[in-house]
Amino acid sequence: MNSLDPLFAPRSIALIGASPRTDSPGGILLHNLSGFRGDIYPVTPAHREIRGLTCYPEPAALPENVDLAVILRPAAEVPAVVAGLRNRCRYAIVVSAGFAETGRGALQEELARAGHEAGIRLLGPNCLGVFNPARQLDTFFLPADRMRRPRRGNVAVVSQSGAVLVSLLEGLAKIGSGVSRAVNYGNAVDLDAPELYDYLAEDSGTDVVLAYLESVGDGRRFIAAARRLAGRKPLLLLKAGKERSGQSAAFSHTGRLAGRYEVFSSILQQNGLREVGEFEELLDGARALSLQRQVSGARVCIITNAGGAGVLAVDACMRGGLETPPLPRDVLEGLRQSFPPFYAVGNPLDLTGQVRDADYGKALAALRDHYDAFLVIALTGVAGVTLGLADILVKFRAGISKPLVAHVAQGRLAGKLEKLLVKSGIPAFPTPERAARGIRLLLGGGG
Amino acid sequence: MNSLDPLFAPRSIALIGASPRTDSPGGILLHNLSGFRGDIYPVTPAHREIRGLTCYPEPAALPENVDLAVILRPAAEVPAVVAGLRNRCRYAIVVSAGFAETGRGALQEELARAGHEAGIRLLGPNCLGVFNPARQLDTFFLPADRMRRPRRGNVAVVSQSGAVLVSLLEGLAKIGSGVSRAVNYGNAVDLDAPELYDYLAEDSGTDVVLAYLESVGDGRRFIAAARRLAGRKPLLLLKAGKERSGQSAAFSHTGRLAGRYEVFSSILQQNGLREVGEFEELLDGARALSLQRQVSGARVCIITNAGGAGVLAVDACMRGGLETPPLPRDVLEGLRQSFPPFYAVGNPLDLTGQVRDADYGKALAALRDHYDAFLVIALTGVAGVTLGLADILVKFRAGISKPLVAHVAQGRLAGKLEKLLVKSGIPAFPTPERAARGIRLLLGGGG
Repeated sequence: MNSLDPLFAPRSIALIGASPRTDSPGGILLHNLSGFRGDIYPVTPAHREIRGLTCYPEPAALPENVDLAVILRPAAEVPAVVAGLRNRCRYAIVVSAGFAETGRGALQEELARAGHEAGIRLLGPNCLGVFNPARQLDTFFLPADRMRRPRRGNVAVVSQSGAVLVSLLEGLAKIGSGVSRAVNYGNAVDLDAPELYDYLAEDSGTDVVLAYLESVGDGRRFIAAARRLAGRKPLLLLKAGKERSGQSAAFSHTGRLAGRYEVFSSILQQNGLREVGEFEELLDGARALSLQRQVSGARVCIITNAGGAGVLAVDACMRGGLETPPLPRDVLEGLRQSFPPFYAVGNPLDLTGQVRDADYGKALAALRDHYDAFLVIALTGVAGVTLGLADILVKFRAGISKPLVAHVAQGRLAGKLEKLLVKSGIPAFPTPERAARGIRLLLGGGG
Repeated sequence: MNSLDPLFAPRSIALIGASPRTDSPGGILLHNLSGFRGDIYPVTPAHREIRGLTCYPEPAALPENVDLAVILRPAAEVPAVVAGLRNRCRYAIVVSAGFAETGRGALQEELARAGHEAGIRLLGPNCLGVFNPARQLDTFFLPADRMRRPRRGNVAVVSQSGAVLVSLLEGLAKIGSGVSRAVNYGNAVDLDAPELYDYLAEDSGTDVVLAYLESVGDGRRFIAAARRLAGRKPLLLLKAGKERSGQSAAFSHTGRLAGRYEVFSSILQQNGLREVGEFEELLDGARALSLQRQVSGARVCIITNAGGAGVLAVDACMRGGLETPPLPRDVLEGLRQSFPPFYAVGNPLDLTGQVRDADYGKALAALRDHYDAFLVIALTGVAGVTLGLADILVKFRAGISKPLVAHVAQGRLAGKLEKLLVKSGIPAFPTPERAARGIRLLLGGGG
């Protein structure tokens, strides 16, 4: 079985179309690969050396075979470039655009043939390629000051669209999530979602997969691979091109027809595959599933210091098919006696603006055996909530194997508290509804 | 007709329960009122002077009548305090909690009677009161370092929940929106949503109203007032307590039964009132409606430099009942000739990663008469997008009376570009779907 390791973790790369100009893709890419843990061979007839690296006029002149070639030449030249790489490498990323997505289907077919005849597996064309922070592999032609990269972590991202991939990676960086592998496969002339999914299913560094797609090549193959992957780890799918005009937009974007969405969607459902509704839910899903393990269950306990936010969280839980059952009578009586009379002891448990950090701990301890998951809401605008709340939640969570997520908001402490929580494995969300969505994913529910 | 001006823009305030302690509500409130444009009379028997202000032992000792009293005494004392204010003021805010929301319905009825007998209109109890940045009126017992206040602007916020109000205000501050009036009415023993809505309908400084509610006192009165308000300016309603357990949570929160949501929701719809689905949509609505006027129409043009984001925007528009019709044939031919062959000229119009700022301007100029609204997507990770794009969009928008919103993301320029746009009246959103929601609101559609 082909592991795609030469693509995601190559030991050597030939960069076809390297350039010293830092405002050209070939120059940006060379710069972004400066930390790469392996050998880099710039290929260009125009220079003898760039950034201290010896250049080679053509692939045939390379001193050794490479694991991966990255091709940045104009579209019309690419089939010949691929043919020239025969016996020099097994994988090539075709970054160049200007194939089926601009109506040049014949050129794309020519590219496919060239790859097949040369025995080279192709990623792309019209793609950004791959990102693997563990190896400092980064084939994106976006300078560092234009795109913030996420740290190393356990989230993999597979996207048909380059822009969506980049937005997702920046979003993950912003919320402090880390990435194991990221890949944009563009027009998918050869390598497609199924093989990438199979690779990620086996990848031990990946715990959750975010997938964006607009179209599917071979439907059966796609579903089979998606099922295999989802059987191993959480897979969150965002399918765009849902509506009629979205479908034609998706066609001009990657040159493949999106297919009837309703059919696709119902097949996903029949196969137990999780589909998310919009972009933001992919990020929220990563937030939750990269930090905690999925368990089964539906009974959620909500503990809040803000009545309204608690009510919104209950609404969102119920909408998502979860339950927020009342507190067991004996626990209720016990908490009523130990809390001030104006705390509303129920589910949600409203500790009011008078709350102190320790009250959350007291409530959680009393309720830990009675619910499947805990949603803690802390608006930090009140005096009794401090950064010490993070310790209390982290300690509680360390003693259970149930999901605990937080909605932290409002107040200058919120940002700091959120960071402390995330660092210790507790996902924090900016609204009650998004926190409820996090809980739903952790309880194995759909997006 | 009672204008509620003494409540929202009083010339003088008596603060019953003032304190020098900056960690007590009475002290925080006094501090927050330090910039108040009017007279403040601290009332407390324990001190002769606080922060340079003469204190009065009881309301009867006040040197003159005041427009507004703010009451911070323990719940049990409040009815007597109100009785003591007879002939001293016409409005009082009861900040104190511990009434119907904690099962003390009799005490709340006693409070209602006291207000009625004293001829004093009451806001609350169990509320934060009012915020009016134009007068530096701020009755929230939250220190400035615990809650960021928004600037002065044209968005009014009316919330039954104090925590939701505070979260909304911080959210508005974060996105750069300004506030005209904000009010939290809590248990609504007297003043309720209808009178507050009527006041805001008349208030010339308010262009859009965000309303959060969990329960409605007199349904007919509520609907009538909401209709009057929505007839004058956009009103976005978020009703919490939608689900059965949400309803009982809402009861313990403000002591009023939430009613059957489905009935309420269908009545809203029948009356053409706009309901939003969750918290974040209130903020997104404010972003759009505070900057641009609603118009009628449904035909949206999407111009993007990121194919995938364009497809997601089309999906979201279609889901929201909008149309994204193809480009007129002659415009399409013209743009095809003036743009590089790899731009995907359609709707969405995909200018690809090779875009330059001026391309957006060229496309908008060619399409301005053919659509009702424009959704511009700019991922700033590519070299051709600069802050100059703001100028181009602002100039285009100055010449039309149609909505133009942006989805700006990804790339270190995004934050700056977003700020520039918002400052010049163009709402910018962090995801394609949320931008589409903004367009939908500006085209008069539901949330």
